[in-house]
Amino acid sequence: MRCKDFPTSFNYLQTLKLSVSSATEKSNQPHRVVIIGGGFGGLYAAIALRKANVGITLIDRRNFHLFQPLLYQVATGGLSPANIATPLRSILSRQKNCEVVLGEVSTIDVAAKMVIVGHNAFEYDSLVVAAGASHAYFGHDEWEPLAPGLKTIEDATNIRCRILAAFEAAEIEADPIKRAAWMTFLVVGGGPTGVELTGALSELAHHTLKHDYRNINPSDAKIILVNASDRVLMPYPEDLSAAAMESLESRNVEVMLDTKLTGVYPDFVVVETPQGVRQIPTKTTLWAAGVKASALGQQLAAASGEPADRTGRVIVQPDLSLALQPEIFVIGDMASSSHQTGKPLPGVASVAMQQGNYVADVIRRRLAGKPATAFHYRDYGSMATIGRGSAVAMFGKRRFSGIFAWLIWLFVHVLKLAKFENRVLVLLQWAWHYTTWNQAARLITQSSASVPKKT
Amino acid sequence: MRCKDFPTSFNYLQTLKLSVSSATEKSNQPHRVVIIGGGFGGLYAAIALRKANVGITLIDRRNFHLFQPLLYQVATGGLSPANIATPLRSILSRQKNCEVVLGEVSTIDVAAKMVIVGHNAFEYDSLVVAAGASHAYFGHDEWEPLAPGLKTIEDATNIRCRILAAFEAAEIEADPIKRAAWMTFLVVGGGPTGVELTGALSELAHHTLKHDYRNINPSDAKIILVNASDRVLMPYPEDLSAAAMESLESRNVEVMLDTKLTGVYPDFVVVETPQGVRQIPTKTTLWAAGVKASALGQQLAAASGEPADRTGRVIVQPDLSLALQPEIFVIGDMASSSHQTGKPLPGVASVAMQQGNYVADVIRRRLAGKPATAFHYRDYGSMATIGRGSAVAMFGKRRFSGIFAWLIWLFVHVLKLAKFENRVLVLLQWAWHYTTWNQAARLITQSSASVPKKT
Repeated sequence: MRCKDFPTSFNYLQTLKLSVSSATEKSNQPHRVVIIGGGFGGLYAAIALRKANVGITLIDRRNFHLFQPLLYQVATGGLSPANIATPLRSILSRQKNCEVVLGEVSTIDVAAKMVIVGHNAFEYDSLVVAAGASHAYFGHDEWEPLAPGLKTIEDATNIRCRILAAFEAAEIEADPIKRAAWMTFLVVGGGPTGVELTGALSELAHHTLKHDYRNINPSDAKIILVNASDRVLMPYPEDLSAAAMESLESRNVEVMLDTKLTGVYPDFVVVETPQGVRQIPTKTTLWAAGVKASALGQQLAAASGEPADRTGRVIVQPDLSLALQPEIFVIGDMASSSHQTGKPLPGVASVAMQQGNYVADVIRRRLAGKPATAFHYRDYGSMATIGRGSAVAMFGKRRFSGIFAWLIWLFVHVLKLAKFENRVLVLLQWAWHYTTWNQAARLITQSSASVPKKT
Repeated sequence: MRCKDFPTSFNYLQTLKLSVSSATEKSNQPHRVVIIGGGFGGLYAAIALRKANVGITLIDRRNFHLFQPLLYQVATGGLSPANIATPLRSILSRQKNCEVVLGEVSTIDVAAKMVIVGHNAFEYDSLVVAAGASHAYFGHDEWEPLAPGLKTIEDATNIRCRILAAFEAAEIEADPIKRAAWMTFLVVGGGPTGVELTGALSELAHHTLKHDYRNINPSDAKIILVNASDRVLMPYPEDLSAAAMESLESRNVEVMLDTKLTGVYPDFVVVETPQGVRQIPTKTTLWAAGVKASALGQQLAAASGEPADRTGRVIVQPDLSLALQPEIFVIGDMASSSHQTGKPLPGVASVAMQQGNYVADVIRRRLAGKPATAFHYRDYGSMATIGRGSAVAMFGKRRFSGIFAWLIWLFVHVLKLAKFENRVLVLLQWAWHYTTWNQAARLITQSSASVPKKT
């Protein structure tokens, strides 16, 4: 966390001598729980421990909890950052057994049971590691600046900036070939994020921006979804994949199945389709294809006694702890927990939340001398939205698509999103945006550093 | 306008050859109006010309109109950028005689009647220059990074970042002397912006953050307003200055009158008080002291036949045009218009709006062969808010302070702010924030460039 032009002497973590866990020392809490990460896993663990006789330290690099499932709405100008982010201190304000530390964990000292943040060290009796995941470019890290992914608020406002700037560039581009490249938006990866992103892009082009330009027609935008497998939304059953595909095509999204991305350049990408290699001119390529676990996972893999899996996730025991260090739990996108079905659980919010609640329970049980049962994920259902009035959903064997699935999606997400905020207000705001197609959030903003000074 | 990691070949204005006014050429509009700046002056001029038989090109560096009077609310975490910014294209979406160009004006070619934006040139028959003002540091430009001012959205999110980061630093600072410096916030300049900023800082410290920290008490924050003259809010009558001063002091703001800033450093500032020179340890100094007109003013001053005034404003005729170039109008913060009262009009939104409407009228009259009367500013009143339930207001000879003035302030600002957005929604959002003291907008965000990558 660094602000523009902050006094160069500013590195607050280094202004302290190595002070061991000063905050928990002064309390009389008998059991110190350190949680790394304020996402769905870490935050839910902290909240679930609110009545336990423990002293909690929640460490995050950012000062807010982010509702990641709606990040694509920020990227496409439908919501503002503050709509989907809530300050961690505000959420945990009245939970007196929990302190929040803003900072980045450099090391987990497993032997000394200490987490190092800058020049501070936090001792733990139980450690919950929930640092999440970032993009993976399958060995092509050079693609990252050319095809940004969507994990942080800054990713989202950066993508929003690029999408809107591409329309601006097209508006004043005289060369029709170049204009077409500005108006081609290519999304890599046909999972839920890719589907939601292309669906929202289509709405932006066909509805929101409809009357905004004089030299281009935003509806001429070409939106392409590149998907390596033979259907979108792989984790869903085939009929829902087909429904999603149909809905995307009705929104003028070109879906390229069985297509592999082999090159990303500033002005075009190269793909291998079943019909052969193709070059697609585009100025805007977005990444929704792969994730890898936080780098902390590699440190912990050693402590688990087993190597991390191929996406860097840590193999955990049935109670989500490490084999050789039972006081360390790893949850959410960082954990590879396959005892239940034989394959790792999906990297979704509901898994992380349930795991957060579960490890809180295990910690309480251990303190009470009670045994813990293995973690069991209850799949309440999955949903993905394609756009206004269109989604796919499955709850056990029941499957829905179209407007009904979308209404369920909307209802569930407004409720979830509003957990820490005012539900009525969020609902009204959405209702207003959905009714008017007006998206006040489509601002081109960046740090002052990259914006020309007002002269 | 530049997004992070945008293809390095991206400079859309340079992808075009010098094409003269392509957009207006193709239309059959007989009279081309170019407006520089989408603030209160430029935007109101464009809107007032919506039914005129002219072709308008509105040029701005940013893609949105900013409601500057509430910028301090973004800086203190009360509102989000999208609450006070509306995309220009969205506002002018259906006004078919107006096109928006996103770009920075490098030159006004007065002889050729052309405005140059990158490699594009826009010919005009009438030109309205409304490019606003930026901070002035009275010959101490080296203070700018140490004492940021508040003019753009990025200024506001940067200041928000610094204020919140200072509390975070204090929370984990063991040394009481250093902690006190982190918790001292010094605002330079006791005009409306300085008063509003210190008032909002006081609310942040005493109410919003109340329960958020474990090692510090945010109420211990020291908030200092440094003012060169012997009272705050100089343009207001003395009794209102006194009321504002009293209200600030009741909110634990320390107001230093007759005090001159002589040095700004990362860890302290130096001031000259009537009692002598003092060093004040502080990590956060904010600038609300002076403005200077956009640099375009210097180019225009030559064309006006008179030098710019000492803050860079262009001396204009009673009809706001330039003496030697009557087809060029200068309005808002860039204009020095003193024919009405003998001294220049204040740099406030209502002057700019009225001038925007006025020049639109002059252009229409000239096209109809009618004469124009001199611009006459109607002062409907002035208001400044100190915080919840406290403001000062004057309407002609009537003066108000306290809760009643604040209710008027709130009513007028919600109406004005909501001009291009949904009034009910904005009102509800404010009501919610005011009731709960909860400020979801207090996010520490910056461009991705300055935020550590998720690993």
